[in-house]
Amino acid sequence: MYNFRNDYSEAAHPAVLSAIAAHNGEHVIGYGADDYCASAAQLIKNLCRCPEADVQFLIGGTQTNFTAIAAFLRPWEGVICAHTGHVNGHEGGAVEATGHKLLQAHAAPDGKLTPELILPLVEEGRNEHVVLPRLVYISDATENGVVYTLAELEALSACCRANNLLLFLDGARLGAAFGAAENDVTLPDLARLTDAFYIGGTKNGALMGEALVIVNPALQEGFFRIKKQRGAVLAKGWLLGLQFQTLLEDGLYWTIARHAVDMAQALQSGLEAMGIPMAPRSASNMVFPVVPDSLLPVLDALCAYEVWTRQDERHTVIRLVTSFATQAADVEGFLSDLKAAL
Amino acid sequence: MYNFRNDYSEAAHPAVLSAIAAHNGEHVIGYGADDYCASAAQLIKNLCRCPEADVQFLIGGTQTNFTAIAAFLRPWEGVICAHTGHVNGHEGGAVEATGHKLLQAHAAPDGKLTPELILPLVEEGRNEHVVLPRLVYISDATENGVVYTLAELEALSACCRANNLLLFLDGARLGAAFGAAENDVTLPDLARLTDAFYIGGTKNGALMGEALVIVNPALQEGFFRIKKQRGAVLAKGWLLGLQFQTLLEDGLYWTIARHAVDMAQALQSGLEAMGIPMAPRSASNMVFPVVPDSLLPVLDALCAYEVWTRQDERHTVIRLVTSFATQAADVEGFLSDLKAAL
Amino acid sequence: MYNFRNDYSEAAHPAVLSAIAAHNGEHVIGYGADDYCASAAQLIKNLCRCPEADVQFLIGGTQTNFTAIAAFLRPWEGVICAHTGHVNGHEGGAVEATGHKLLQAHAAPDGKLTPELILPLVEEGRNEHVVLPRLVYISDATENGVVYTLAELEALSACCRANNLLLFLDGARLGAAFGAAENDVTLPDLARLTDAFYIGGTKNGALMGEALVIVNPALQEGFFRIKKQRGAVLAKGWLLGLQFQTLLEDGLYWTIARHAVDMAQALQSGLEAMGIPMAPRSASNMVFPVVPDSLLPVLDALCAYEVWTRQDERHTVIRLVTSFATQAADVEGFLSDLKAAL
Amino acid sequence: MYNFRNDYSEAAHPAVLSAIAAHNGEHVIGYGADDYCASAAQLIKNLCRCPEADVQFLIGGTQTNFTAIAAFLRPWEGVICAHTGHVNGHEGGAVEATGHKLLQAHAAPDGKLTPELILPLVEEGRNEHVVLPRLVYISDATENGVVYTLAELEALSACCRANNLLLFLDGARLGAAFGAAENDVTLPDLARLTDAFYIGGTKNGALMGEALVIVNPALQEGFFRIKKQRGAVLAKGWLLGLQFQTLLEDGLYWTIARHAVDMAQALQSGLEAMGIPMAPRSASNMVFPVVPDSLLPVLDALCAYEVWTRQDERHTVIRLVTSFATQAADVEGFLSDLKAAL
Repeated sequence: MYNFRNDYSEAAHPAVLSAIAAHNGEHVIGYGADDYCASAAQLIKNLCRCPEADVQFLIGGTQTNFTAIAAFLRPWEGVICAHTGHVNGHEGGAVEATGHKLLQAHAAPDGKLTPELILPLVEEGRNEHVVLPRLVYISDATENGVVYTLAELEALSACCRANNLLLFLDGARLGAAFGAAENDVTLPDLARLTDAFYIGGTKNGALMGEALVIVNPALQEGFFRIKKQRGAVLAKGWLLGLQFQTLLEDGLYWTIARHAVDMAQALQSGLEAMGIPMAPRSASNMVFPVVPDSLLPVLDALCAYEVWTRQDERHTVIRLVTSFATQAADVEGFLSDLKAAL
Repeated sequence: MYNFRNDYSEAAHPAVLSAIAAHNGEHVIGYGADDYCASAAQLIKNLCRCPEADVQFLIGGTQTNFTAIAAFLRPWEGVICAHTGHVNGHEGGAVEATGHKLLQAHAAPDGKLTPELILPLVEEGRNEHVVLPRLVYISDATENGVVYTLAELEALSACCRANNLLLFLDGARLGAAFGAAENDVTLPDLARLTDAFYIGGTKNGALMGEALVIVNPALQEGFFRIKKQRGAVLAKGWLLGLQFQTLLEDGLYWTIARHAVDMAQALQSGLEAMGIPMAPRSASNMVFPVVPDSLLPVLDALCAYEVWTRQDERHTVIRLVTSFATQAADVEGFLSDLKAAL
Repeated sequence: MYNFRNDYSEAAHPAVLSAIAAHNGEHVIGYGADDYCASAAQLIKNLCRCPEADVQFLIGGTQTNFTAIAAFLRPWEGVICAHTGHVNGHEGGAVEATGHKLLQAHAAPDGKLTPELILPLVEEGRNEHVVLPRLVYISDATENGVVYTLAELEALSACCRANNLLLFLDGARLGAAFGAAENDVTLPDLARLTDAFYIGGTKNGALMGEALVIVNPALQEGFFRIKKQRGAVLAKGWLLGLQFQTLLEDGLYWTIARHAVDMAQALQSGLEAMGIPMAPRSASNMVFPVVPDSLLPVLDALCAYEVWTRQDERHTVIRLVTSFATQAADVEGFLSDLKAAL
Repeated sequence: MYNFRNDYSEAAHPAVLSAIAAHNGEHVIGYGADDYCASAAQLIKNLCRCPEADVQFLIGGTQTNFTAIAAFLRPWEGVICAHTGHVNGHEGGAVEATGHKLLQAHAAPDGKLTPELILPLVEEGRNEHVVLPRLVYISDATENGVVYTLAELEALSACCRANNLLLFLDGARLGAAFGAAENDVTLPDLARLTDAFYIGGTKNGALMGEALVIVNPALQEGFFRIKKQRGAVLAKGWLLGLQFQTLLEDGLYWTIARHAVDMAQALQSGLEAMGIPMAPRSASNMVFPVVPDSLLPVLDALCAYEVWTRQDERHTVIRLVTSFATQAADVEGFLSDLKAAL
């Protein structure tokens, strides 16, 4: 049985586990006040060419999203997001549980926000009887596997700055975004164009962990305290620093992300070659084939995957995801087994 | 330099890391819906002789405390705790951030709650203009290293049931409590006497993780959803299940806890033999010597420790903590080095 | 200048003010524990033929909505509402500020919810990674001036009960709803079909005040405490009881509501007779003419009104509202002045 | 039966009710955007000699406290208050319900805060694992009837500014404070020394209403939106403006406050003359006699009052409160009836 269920099915890249094992004997100070975190943070600031950034390590994506949003906003302020945004549909109402409203824009199937989608919400927010739009949440790669171009991010950033909006980028799958063939965005671009963003570890080789880069100095105050308050300070915080150091110091993070994207793109091309369309076409490590419902039992027997949504009366969109652990042989095997079954 | 700073300075017990490495190749379903979690949960229910319990794995202590309290209480209900309770003084206002007031009882230096401390707060709560006391929070071992006796827990439990109060036990250091010489409490006792409690992994050999045992069926509804909402669902949740399985299936959890307690008690006896008093005397893996301020530079040179509080104009209470990683040689070396320095 | 801005432009119906003046010399116990509140509550229970209801007086509509929702729901539960619902677009994110997500259904222009709109949200909520839909919020009259029929409410109620959903009816304009010609709903119907609803005072003759009827006994616990906590307990609470007693004991509430509806319907007919369409046609005390933009300056000079929304490139929907204070002469004068100006 | 239960037993000073009746026919714009509110706000700014202040009208004291605190603080910040503070013991956990911890100082029986009580909490707050103390809450008059001197407020203000703390003064009974013989504080003093304070209407002649004066410009942003969000925007907001205008434009507010204080002081002197001690001696419109328990049945028959607390095994502290509606004849009659009963 092939596994394309998601990119967090395996514990960690072997190099990450080895690093932890290698340092297991050490006594390290708790709560992230250690040298591993300091050095990983410095590494990230260097990679972003942004010495004034504050780098904070948290445990998971939902936690990073709501802790950052709660830290950045005042009680009367809200978040503009795509209706398909992870914060809106996959996080148990975590943002609202911090007291903030999500102002949803009806995005295209690719899940991208644009100035055109944002501006009407800004307009509505001029009415003082509603929530003030103050932060724009985007994900790169999006929940639908698509990546932003530099031009798109620049347009979003300009729109945000012109409208007193913070730009926050959920990078749970930033590796996969940067691994996409059409990607032309870099870490210094993100540091220049957003107010805060994060580099996801959980979905790209770490046991767990997200590295939040708070670029805007006005948003840095008090962050450790709110992290503690929201349960996002790991007692053995140095484990997060060590993992990011291991992943980033020699570029392993980007190598394994590119590998995952390559595997997914091979899956996508192979499926398209069999006449199976995509919805939408993905650039990253997740692909979304539209399959006839009659094919589902065949797929159930072949591989682990997720049902994404219904396309129409007789078709289903499924999601196949690859990771550092996906082998070229898995992709080829799956494609040939599927072809045989058709 | 000896290390007695705390019990979460090292990554994990080697057996825990080995187990993770051994299973690293596997593809496991996410978010704790896996077999490792199921089997660890079953193991815990067996150990508690409580088949109707719901076992939930979370990442850390602060997170477990506020998620459980937020799940169990209605908005107008509050928490009775000792003023020394971890929720009150060490968690960044995490409980209040979920909207619930802490009703503090002024506890004795051992940090224990008693019916005598609870009842006046129940009385005040009859006034409908204040928060309704609804949950009693205790820690075992307490923040001051003391453990509850079975008779004390029975009295607390009876008091709670007579006054419509839930009893919640923070077991971040439950291993150390159960490892104490004077302990006469068992897991089935906790399952019988509390509404919920947890078995701490972070401070007893795991990389991270707490196993929350929700005994009271009325408190079990919706727990996965609120866990997700508060960022407490680990994507690779199986890592928590696997660690608890490793620690509990052959009793390793209790062995390493007893070792840590033995090391701390040896420290305590050795210090007392040098004429250094304790405040209060500890039963668990943390000891609280009262040292003259003039000794602090000597200690700074000898070991890592924490300043706990000021005792008087010329004395300081310090905290020394031991763990699975503390060696008998460390204790002996420290004591003899200290004696030499005096 | 005619006034059709809203139904809360004037202080109170003269009988209400007289009642307050008549009792001003008395010493009355605070916080609603008085005889006026008791007697008004009893009157409402009688009118609803629902002796087991709990009647609670609050100060305003937004406050009643969020206090009730916060009282009724657990943290992981959310609210299904029309995207046009008052809680969604006019209350400053008050529900989200209590931690609960609004799950918006895209309603028809009349602003009504139906089982067809609710069921897909129930379906999505089966996924444990999202908020559990638990309460359905409707307004009668809706924000767009339309009223529910008994058959519609019965269908909603059946749908809610079949899906473990609470039904909560915002009755800020319940007087206007019941004053509509097509209304066939009664207070005993609401007590039978909903879990809670309220009878709005602010928009129908009171200085301020809403009477919340909590029909479902499971939702009654702790309500005074949460009311206090959310600032909804008026020190001189007896003023609310006295006003509702004055409005309800001889049917004044319904008389003035019917008068307001009659005035609005005369406006609507008069405007339609001039060829001005409605969007949608209203049954209550608010009418929504679609006027060419060129008419706006004429209207600005003639009356106070509110711009509701844009209809298309050259037309605007405006809102005209009537109240107990609207005179037949105002309506006639306005219509004839407008006709003259056209 | 005499009435000394509290200062909110009667509807309103007759002049206030007359003003409302006189303007009842008018059509006034909603939500406080009217001329009455504008003119009352200007009057208050003039009285405070503080043109840059923002004056906001809210409905009640609890609501004003939690809305202001929620507006002024970031999520990781807390409130220093006396353990006897109204926010701590009488408001249903309203501040905690907005997510903020109260850091309680154990105040003297007069209920006053001092720099000596504040500084240790500031010290504890340097630890990043706890809530950051950021706002000091005081009440004038205190909950125990005592008033601050100008020197005391100056010391508090200096302490706050030196420690990056906001100073917020609950003036629910500011009239009674300023009516005290020993008062030497003025509105311009409050504007100079605090960041925000309020002038209470509910307990000094208004139907309801508090006038919040936000002196610090950094705290003014977004206040209307959060007021709306917390249910503190009255639809007929002009009623609040009109009442404050009526009370303040010719000094009626101070006249009736002084009258209430005079009545309370006469009560206090009369009781002391009978040998009944006070706990503590009051300067304002509330007095706290310590009476033998055997006297309680006599008092029950004579007047309405509140039991405040137990003094010892055989004595109770009761609270007697006066208002604009208390007559000299009531005080004299009560004292002579009590003397006769002794």
